[in-house]
Amino acid sequence: MHGADYNPDQWLDSPSVLEDDIRLMKLAGCNVMSIGIFSWAALEPEEGVFTFEWMDRLLERFANNGIYAWLATPSGARPAWMSARYPEVRRVEANRVRNLHGMRHNHCYTSPVYREKTAKLNGLLAERYANHPAVIGWHISNEFGGDCHCDYCQEAFRDWLRSKYGTLDELNRSWWASFWAHTYTDWKQIESPAPHGEFAVHGHNLDWRRFVTDRTVDFCRHEIEAVRGANPSLPVTTNMHMIEGLDYRKFADVLDVISWDAYPTWHERSDDTRLAAEMAFYHDLFRSIKGKPFLLMESTPSQTNWQPVSKLKQPGMHMLSSLQAVAHGSDSVQYFQWRKSRGSSEKFHGAVVDHVGHEHTRVFRDVAELGAALSGLSEVAGAATVAEVAILFDWDNRWAVKDAQGPRNMGIHYEETVYAHHRAFWQNGVATDVIGSADDFGKYKLIVAPMLYMCGEEAGARLEKFVERGGVLVSTYWSGIVDERDLCHLGGFPGPLRKTLGVWAEEIEGLYDHDRNGIVLAEGNPLGLSGEYEAREICELVHSEGAEVLASYAESFYAGRPALTLNALGEGKAYYMATRLGDDFLSDFYSKLIVEIGLRRAVETKLPAGVTAQARTNGVDDFVFVMNFGGREQPVELDGRAYIDAITGEVAGNRITLGMNGVRVLKRRANG
Amino acid sequence: MHGADYNPDQWLDSPSVLEDDIRLMKLAGCNVMSIGIFSWAALEPEEGVFTFEWMDRLLERFANNGIYAWLATPSGARPAWMSARYPEVRRVEANRVRNLHGMRHNHCYTSPVYREKTAKLNGLLAERYANHPAVIGWHISNEFGGDCHCDYCQEAFRDWLRSKYGTLDELNRSWWASFWAHTYTDWKQIESPAPHGEFAVHGHNLDWRRFVTDRTVDFCRHEIEAVRGANPSLPVTTNMHMIEGLDYRKFADVLDVISWDAYPTWHERSDDTRLAAEMAFYHDLFRSIKGKPFLLMESTPSQTNWQPVSKLKQPGMHMLSSLQAVAHGSDSVQYFQWRKSRGSSEKFHGAVVDHVGHEHTRVFRDVAELGAALSGLSEVAGAATVAEVAILFDWDNRWAVKDAQGPRNMGIHYEETVYAHHRAFWQNGVATDVIGSADDFGKYKLIVAPMLYMCGEEAGARLEKFVERGGVLVSTYWSGIVDERDLCHLGGFPGPLRKTLGVWAEEIEGLYDHDRNGIVLAEGNPLGLSGEYEAREICELVHSEGAEVLASYAESFYAGRPALTLNALGEGKAYYMATRLGDDFLSDFYSKLIVEIGLRRAVETKLPAGVTAQARTNGVDDFVFVMNFGGREQPVELDGRAYIDAITGEVAGNRITLGMNGVRVLKRRANG
Amino acid sequence: MHGADYNPDQWLDSPSVLEDDIRLMKLAGCNVMSIGIFSWAALEPEEGVFTFEWMDRLLERFANNGIYAWLATPSGARPAWMSARYPEVRRVEANRVRNLHGMRHNHCYTSPVYREKTAKLNGLLAERYANHPAVIGWHISNEFGGDCHCDYCQEAFRDWLRSKYGTLDELNRSWWASFWAHTYTDWKQIESPAPHGEFAVHGHNLDWRRFVTDRTVDFCRHEIEAVRGANPSLPVTTNMHMIEGLDYRKFADVLDVISWDAYPTWHERSDDTRLAAEMAFYHDLFRSIKGKPFLLMESTPSQTNWQPVSKLKQPGMHMLSSLQAVAHGSDSVQYFQWRKSRGSSEKFHGAVVDHVGHEHTRVFRDVAELGAALSGLSEVAGAATVAEVAILFDWDNRWAVKDAQGPRNMGIHYEETVYAHHRAFWQNGVATDVIGSADDFGKYKLIVAPMLYMCGEEAGARLEKFVERGGVLVSTYWSGIVDERDLCHLGGFPGPLRKTLGVWAEEIEGLYDHDRNGIVLAEGNPLGLSGEYEAREICELVHSEGAEVLASYAESFYAGRPALTLNALGEGKAYYMATRLGDDFLSDFYSKLIVEIGLRRAVETKLPAGVTAQARTNGVDDFVFVMNFGGREQPVELDGRAYIDAITGEVAGNRITLGMNGVRVLKRRANG
Repeated sequence: MHGADYNPDQWLDSPSVLEDDIRLMKLAGCNVMSIGIFSWAALEPEEGVFTFEWMDRLLERFANNGIYAWLATPSGARPAWMSARYPEVRRVEANRVRNLHGMRHNHCYTSPVYREKTAKLNGLLAERYANHPAVIGWHISNEFGGDCHCDYCQEAFRDWLRSKYGTLDELNRSWWASFWAHTYTDWKQIESPAPHGEFAVHGHNLDWRRFVTDRTVDFCRHEIEAVRGANPSLPVTTNMHMIEGLDYRKFADVLDVISWDAYPTWHERSDDTRLAAEMAFYHDLFRSIKGKPFLLMESTPSQTNWQPVSKLKQPGMHMLSSLQAVAHGSDSVQYFQWRKSRGSSEKFHGAVVDHVGHEHTRVFRDVAELGAALSGLSEVAGAATVAEVAILFDWDNRWAVKDAQGPRNMGIHYEETVYAHHRAFWQNGVATDVIGSADDFGKYKLIVAPMLYMCGEEAGARLEKFVERGGVLVSTYWSGIVDERDLCHLGGFPGPLRKTLGVWAEEIEGLYDHDRNGIVLAEGNPLGLSGEYEAREICELVHSEGAEVLASYAESFYAGRPALTLNALGEGKAYYMATRLGDDFLSDFYSKLIVEIGLRRAVETKLPAGVTAQARTNGVDDFVFVMNFGGREQPVELDGRAYIDAITGEVAGNRITLGMNGVRVLKRRANG
Repeated sequence: MHGADYNPDQWLDSPSVLEDDIRLMKLAGCNVMSIGIFSWAALEPEEGVFTFEWMDRLLERFANNGIYAWLATPSGARPAWMSARYPEVRRVEANRVRNLHGMRHNHCYTSPVYREKTAKLNGLLAERYANHPAVIGWHISNEFGGDCHCDYCQEAFRDWLRSKYGTLDELNRSWWASFWAHTYTDWKQIESPAPHGEFAVHGHNLDWRRFVTDRTVDFCRHEIEAVRGANPSLPVTTNMHMIEGLDYRKFADVLDVISWDAYPTWHERSDDTRLAAEMAFYHDLFRSIKGKPFLLMESTPSQTNWQPVSKLKQPGMHMLSSLQAVAHGSDSVQYFQWRKSRGSSEKFHGAVVDHVGHEHTRVFRDVAELGAALSGLSEVAGAATVAEVAILFDWDNRWAVKDAQGPRNMGIHYEETVYAHHRAFWQNGVATDVIGSADDFGKYKLIVAPMLYMCGEEAGARLEKFVERGGVLVSTYWSGIVDERDLCHLGGFPGPLRKTLGVWAEEIEGLYDHDRNGIVLAEGNPLGLSGEYEAREICELVHSEGAEVLASYAESFYAGRPALTLNALGEGKAYYMATRLGDDFLSDFYSKLIVEIGLRRAVETKLPAGVTAQARTNGVDDFVFVMNFGGREQPVELDGRAYIDAITGEVAGNRITLGMNGVRVLKRRANG
Repeated sequence: MHGADYNPDQWLDSPSVLEDDIRLMKLAGCNVMSIGIFSWAALEPEEGVFTFEWMDRLLERFANNGIYAWLATPSGARPAWMSARYPEVRRVEANRVRNLHGMRHNHCYTSPVYREKTAKLNGLLAERYANHPAVIGWHISNEFGGDCHCDYCQEAFRDWLRSKYGTLDELNRSWWASFWAHTYTDWKQIESPAPHGEFAVHGHNLDWRRFVTDRTVDFCRHEIEAVRGANPSLPVTTNMHMIEGLDYRKFADVLDVISWDAYPTWHERSDDTRLAAEMAFYHDLFRSIKGKPFLLMESTPSQTNWQPVSKLKQPGMHMLSSLQAVAHGSDSVQYFQWRKSRGSSEKFHGAVVDHVGHEHTRVFRDVAELGAALSGLSEVAGAATVAEVAILFDWDNRWAVKDAQGPRNMGIHYEETVYAHHRAFWQNGVATDVIGSADDFGKYKLIVAPMLYMCGEEAGARLEKFVERGGVLVSTYWSGIVDERDLCHLGGFPGPLRKTLGVWAEEIEGLYDHDRNGIVLAEGNPLGLSGEYEAREICELVHSEGAEVLASYAESFYAGRPALTLNALGEGKAYYMATRLGDDFLSDFYSKLIVEIGLRRAVETKLPAGVTAQARTNGVDDFVFVMNFGGREQPVELDGRAYIDAITGEVAGNRITLGMNGVRVLKRRANG
């Protein structure tokens, strides 16, 4: 699938533009469009008055020209008449001020009126189009996000809490409400967090975030129910984003396909390697949610208009970044947007068709070239990613560790730490899943759990069992600190991981940005590492309780105390890093570990810096994407297996050369 | 005219202070005071109770001592009783919260009560003083600015829109309201921009800013109407400031004289050159509004008290900075303030008379010295500035280009770019007007239009005609992008300037602050420039459509593509800079152009760095101000014409020496 | 006294924890706990329902185990039921929005309901426990602070103003309300400062701050009255903090003992010297409020959890920082907190007992070691500090000079300047009081008054008399500018200090951070200083009026003008620094002055950098604390007198060695 968000409702008075769009879509090799995303005002210009005719004509044009549509429900932005007539649909911010009409993605997910209006229009769309030959799926709303603090939502939050805790006693205990006399004696006393009210009770903040996810999923389900009936087989997705506020794993059950919107800032530095690895992390994350191919629902064919600086894509980058998504499991490349709008806040956002209106632009040519390549790769669609490593990345933990008021309030750098561990596998061409602690651990050889601050008894026990049965676990400082209520484990950190890791973490120190410590590797350590590495930001003072000490601190009053340990448990092993270590260490450490555990790499070879390889397989053939983000031409030595170019079909030698921003898709026999 | 804002109402219980003020004014050579600016509480202490007696006595004292007054209408700050009794007079901010009483310049320009109270008091002042021998003009309010979002203003905004657009369809089209379903179906749905409502519809923002200017002009006109009747011949002004929010050109018709308040931060750096050029820009801008001499209504005789750091004026700087205003067309030097107040928020703002209360201070001596010089320059009053160059600087464009969400949201640096182009003429001693795109182009040989992002069809056609008839145009990247509705031109940028400039701008890239590119001059280019210059921030990828390529990019994937072009059209020429270039380039480029076009300089000689010369003429004599902002003594070689010192009457040699912060006013025969 | 804040109400359902606490307290050498600080919800879970039983049991346990209690009134945080039922108890912020329930320290000090509820519960606590053998004093509320802008407080503010000024005329005069027409004609027009109202009338701001202090003291008195009756002999304190908003001297009369909470960020830099001196300043300040020993009511035994970075205390620092408090006059070392809470916003704040729950931690051992040392120092309790130097530090001045809008709005650095002058004495081991300008000057030989911007006629006259009678005064730029109404002195600065200092300050210039000037010492000046020193930030242009010029400016147009002067008046002398000078100058200057005046030092010897000595005396023995904050081991040469170690009783040689973070307490005969 290759296509874009398409907003013909902006050009209804320019029929020639609409005609020309079809011609240009074919020229660009685009076969699927997301339509209707912000069309509520065009579909229901007055309350109860519906104007579907333009959409009828559009879908007919599509059907006649072999173009398909993800049909959107238009709830991402509501018409002005609704905001005016029903103030309740407008979101109330944490400061308890109700929004005026404007912008988008700011309705109340609880409002009965909004739910009613959404269901009504969704139902009519489904009735009319769910069996239309051009329609291939539902695009539910757009980039869900944010929270509402209106009275409806307050009441819903209290219901949610009542259902979770049963009694106020239990809630007070979980929130440790005796602190600062915050004990609740009536459910009505509870409100959502507010800057001018309660904002520092961690359990309260955490439950509010959980509630917001549940509320959003519930709204999404409400939308889906309104469209399902007319054609239950039509797949449903909603486009996700790099949003911290929603635990996307909770959407897995209500959606058929995961899709997301990727907007990296390519060329911010002369070397795109770190950014490419971060994008890879998100592709892996979204793929792992359902454990199957996802869709790249939005990306820009050139630049965005809302980042601090709008750089152009260099030659090759459009092909490279689009195929990167495919390499990690995407079955589509779609854009925001097909054609630039003439006015309003995204008029300079990159598009396939620019204001100039014709195809004779660099961007259009890049898109058309990709279209041709994608049609040559159609057999990749549906192919699987097989990962033996998983990174543990829980939204609950992410929220809690950053809300914690602990060792480094000026920056605990949770995500950056997770990215750093993931990056070490990416640069080795090792496929990685990104999972939650409730997911199945059984299929992995190695689980990496950086800063698993929130780790309940059950998750701890599951990790213990994983190691006992032969798995390898890598964990770090500031793990096993609180349970799922955000209450500290008593009796010694890392709490439920203490036995698995074989250490007791007595104290933890934050370092200033200007502070440095280091670690010294022990002579003859089993990983064969040696010398010193820099440590910073966080130093935990741990005691070994049976773990082998692989490295010790180099500086401060705790010089000589354990900084890196290895514990044997059952059939498996558990490593513990007591301090934050740099890319140099992680690269050396994981390179050794990959060999020791025998993890499969996409290509069994050493890749140059900035180059990665990622594989997908359909069981018969493997498709290996070799990608160069290093900012200059680089040769890559392959592993001696027989490869052909998946796009051209030509035989590839064992040494290929990737230009700057270059990418090759190679095909080989699976298990060859 | 030499004088200051004078607030005797602060000292009514110290009659000796008021007596001493008259003595000191004479001693300082001050002959005009602005009075009554914040006197509403002193003039109407209770609603309907008026106390003019102190003003009677003041004006009598003035008349008896040869001192004149700009009589202010006191609407800049209202009495507390009015805020308490009539909440509607208090402004409502964009967050829809009504101000409490306090500060100043924060009334609602629409409030019927405020208009009524203002008209009433203005009328009484006019009745009593409009024919007083000491009164020479009206000082309407003080530094108008800001906006109000109350219900009255919302209604006025809707009326303004209705009158502009006629139909909602037309408004929706102009605002591109189909984007994000923002189509309005009832005028009542429209509100002013708000941080918690609509803030990213460019047409909406732009129209709000235009409305705010119109509303403010309308209030100003309302004030003027209340004073005009009693003596229609008394001139009217209002003091302007470096305010972005008001299109001051719209005030031209209602005012007789333009006046403004200048507060540069002298000595922030060891070299004041850039700052001096920026002040020159504003002097030129305010002079150009009515194309005749203006008044410097406020300046500080020493330091302000509201800037980050309050530096003193070095010896000479008071004379230099005051005469700079005169050099660019001011017929006055006036100060805020005559005497320092004992308390409240401006008690440490520089004044002619300090808290010490006597004349034996450095500041007083500097003021008196200037007073003597000004009285020697009385024949300069009314003399004209003749400019052959105009810089195009539209408020509409300024607002739109900064609201645009485009290539560099971290800083598009519009004003800085305009200043930089202006500075190249300033340092060459070339007089420059600063005009709007609706002004007459016919009198200029050269028009410089940096970043003319907003350029409607009509403005584009007028520029095309200007070039065809022999004018020279210099334009830059990011020009001709949107029309006056802020809708993008279709069919290729720079839209209506494409034919004139002979280029098509296909793409535009923002650079990070750490990015650099450069341009390489073509061999044998007609300007005779050579070598390389640095480029940064913005690089446009243009195609020549007939224009000669004078320079090409040095770096990036667009190295070798046009970066500076020259198009011949009719009798004229049009230059285009596709990227942001530094002062070194602008200086070299414009120095060549000045010669090529044959632009007149105030002195036909090369001036040292930091020195400029500016001329005024009465047709018989030219007055040439040679000014040294370079931070050290510098010799200046004149052009061989016969000069005398305009203040002392002595003959000046062809080589003069300007001390640090030095200035000389020279006189010569006009057209000599 | 050695102990901590203790919150057993968080563990009422874990009786074993409570039992173990007693055991651990004894083990740690802790003999006093602050209890009930946030226990309102535990003591009155529903309105009018009181549950004292747990407190009964607690105090009984204490009594049985020789542990004492500071019993807190729980008004620092109120129960949720009160916020819900009586909205008036919730504070209204300056933006006029009433807080929701949450956090702490945010009640209205005026609310009749809050006062009633507080008095009721306080009275019941007093009735029940004021004569309990374990209770040794009252801990009133917790860290009073902040302000409320509700209607009750507005009315109270108006009453306060009416009582202060009598008439609106007098108020208008004092606030210089004629500026910007701010004259009030009805008391009802007056409101507290607000960001969307009045915020720049200095007299208004200042009176609001004074009112807030008076209001807070009044609330504190209200609380005390409710507990006093049951046992008038029980001492009363409230724990203070480094809060700018409250003039703590106004609490002196209502409290029996001063106590405060110290939270330095040790080890932020490799050398803790500056930070240690700053802490010393605050210890001196709090001791000086009542001129007798104070209590260190809170400190952390390891780290906080709310600073930007949470560093651990290095070995020795717990002993050193705790004994520093004792050295400066504290009769206690107490902590927040005894045991870490399991949840909520301070769960990671350092505590004696960690989540691990046992005594085998480094922190516990440090605490126990200190407990042993303190019990060896019991005879120090009650010993006096004798200071011959006083630093003048008025809250009124502090507020006014920072609100002033004057020479350097980007940072006037008032406190930093005061600390710098204090530091010069600290490093010389000279005891220093920190007093207000209404305090007794008679007992000092030297008074240092940095930036005495606000100096009324009376304070000026008292300083003049102090000098005439033989005292030495050191004053600086920006002194004697305004009177206690914040109105400028007329007739020449430094106003009432002009005769004393013998200078007239004509102008004052702010410098940018990148600007530098310097001073050149005059040959043969009486202090024997020579060479040049750097000056920055502020340069005042003064004229000597009889003062001897000791140094002159090195740069700028005022090079050669006086920068440091000495005036003889009566029996005394007055020095004036016209510019901001660095630590190097202050160190040299005060070292000379100490010798010249003959000020006593704790040890008559030169101390190495980072080492200070502070003495307390009971008239028979002196206790000398020698402390090393310099970040490395250092030898100290004593002064030849006979010393023994106060803790061990061993004889100390004349040369002692202090390890990194080392401290020795030495005892000698008083007046030996």
